[in-house]
Amino acid sequence: MLDQIQIILSHTTHPGNIGAAARAMKVMGLSQLKLINPKFFPSAEATERASKAADILSNAKVYTDINSALSECRLVVGASVRTRSLPSRLVTPRELTTIIKQKPENQPIAILFGTENSGLTNDELHLCHYQVYIPTNPEYSSLNLASAVQLISYEMRLAFAEMQQLPEAKVNANEQSITQQQFDSLQQHFYQIMLETGYVNPHHVKQLENRLNRLLSKAQVTQSENRLLRGFLSAIEKRRRRVSQPQENEEAMLEREKYDV
Amino acid sequence: MLDQIQIILSHTTHPGNIGAAARAMKVMGLSQLKLINPKFFPSAEATERASKAADILSNAKVYTDINSALSECRLVVGASVRTRSLPSRLVTPRELTTIIKQKPENQPIAILFGTENSGLTNDELHLCHYQVYIPTNPEYSSLNLASAVQLISYEMRLAFAEMQQLPEAKVNANEQSITQQQFDSLQQHFYQIMLETGYVNPHHVKQLENRLNRLLSKAQVTQSENRLLRGFLSAIEKRRRRVSQPQENEEAMLEREKYDV
Repeated sequence: MLDQIQIILSHTTHPGNIGAAARAMKVMGLSQLKLINPKFFPSAEATERASKAADILSNAKVYTDINSALSECRLVVGASVRTRSLPSRLVTPRELTTIIKQKPENQPIAILFGTENSGLTNDELHLCHYQVYIPTNPEYSSLNLASAVQLISYEMRLAFAEMQQLPEAKVNANEQSITQQQFDSLQQHFYQIMLETGYVNPHHVKQLENRLNRLLSKAQVTQSENRLLRGFLSAIEKRRRRVSQPQENEEAMLEREKYDV
Repeated sequence: MLDQIQIILSHTTHPGNIGAAARAMKVMGLSQLKLINPKFFPSAEATERASKAADILSNAKVYTDINSALSECRLVVGASVRTRSLPSRLVTPRELTTIIKQKPENQPIAILFGTENSGLTNDELHLCHYQVYIPTNPEYSSLNLASAVQLISYEMRLAFAEMQQLPEAKVNANEQSITQQQFDSLQQHFYQIMLETGYVNPHHVKQLENRLNRLLSKAQVTQSENRLLRGFLSAIEKRRRRVSQPQENEEAMLEREKYDV
């Protein structure tokens, strides 16, 4: 689907913007770039800004008039941050993806971007079925050309790339959450040490228990974190019971090793 | 709301990217820019690329370390296109806006961007409550820094610019998140007690520090929970120092009352 979407840049003045637009496309998985009368192209500056999207530049088709650039497209959308007195139907980028989803597949779709300073001309806008309006700050709506391509390409990726899966974090055994039983033991251990240190007033315990429960629950403690906390609590415990005995550090370290922290 | 969102660029190499990021922010209505150890700043290239967003550059605050940059922030989000072996909680930009909506208003939120070539360091990621993952082409995920800022700022604008003022969730002071400064103090306190009890082997501390950091970060500790934990740690501390003295329980209770738990 992303290959059906053609980004068409009309009368681009700065070749750097063409390169940056190519990079913006590729990073979102788009590949079809067309240029209508670019002021400078090919250009070393475009290639530099494209970074590793130079393939998109070398495959880009260059046209001298808009009609031949659009000839095979079934849906033409003009990108603009401004509205005109006779606007095409105005949609947000997100609404545009809904419209595209309703179209038959395998039909080329053109998204047309005008020249940097003045945007699409009225003649260009008249060729558009829709005008896609990128929401901007009304006090400063000067969206850079490549940034506009970036935002549109991003919305297309969200809508059409193969199921947007977050990359699966590699979860090893240490990173798995603790079981409810481990959770209860951890909480009990905390609570016991709080009692032993005299931190808890045994007559007003319920609220503290609830708070401790919620805090530990929010932390979503993992196996390795559980060992860290249990080892720490055991070290406090041992220290208390063997206080003023020699070799305490060694004791605590053994405790730490036992819990494999 | 958009003024609560701070864009923080860490160790930016190319000043042009700082300028382009400022423009990307302003066009979406964001204004708060912070820089941590930029390689070149101020810079004519940054000013040129900022176009009419030079005010954001001149108001940008420059820091030499990340902790002072984050000190007042209640929620820290790291932007990344890669995942690590120990990821913070991973969310899409759109999911992030949902999370931010659930936070009380008027609390600074940091969105942290790493250096161009290698992104956020592991140490930086450990400070983040969430990692925001911008979906990209798995075969070419090299999103330009300013483009990443553009996409995040766009999602923030969509979510918050014309958001109807929902009745403010009544969050009392106890339920507010701790500041980054309080977070640091809490972590230091834990760490100090871990050292004092001999639980930490002073020669192998780094990994333990990272784990402790991440665990506390996941918990999103509130003010009242902070008092609970600090009071507990102080009780352990007092107990150690006054061990085998009478009236320990009373001491610890006073400690608890001091922290208002």
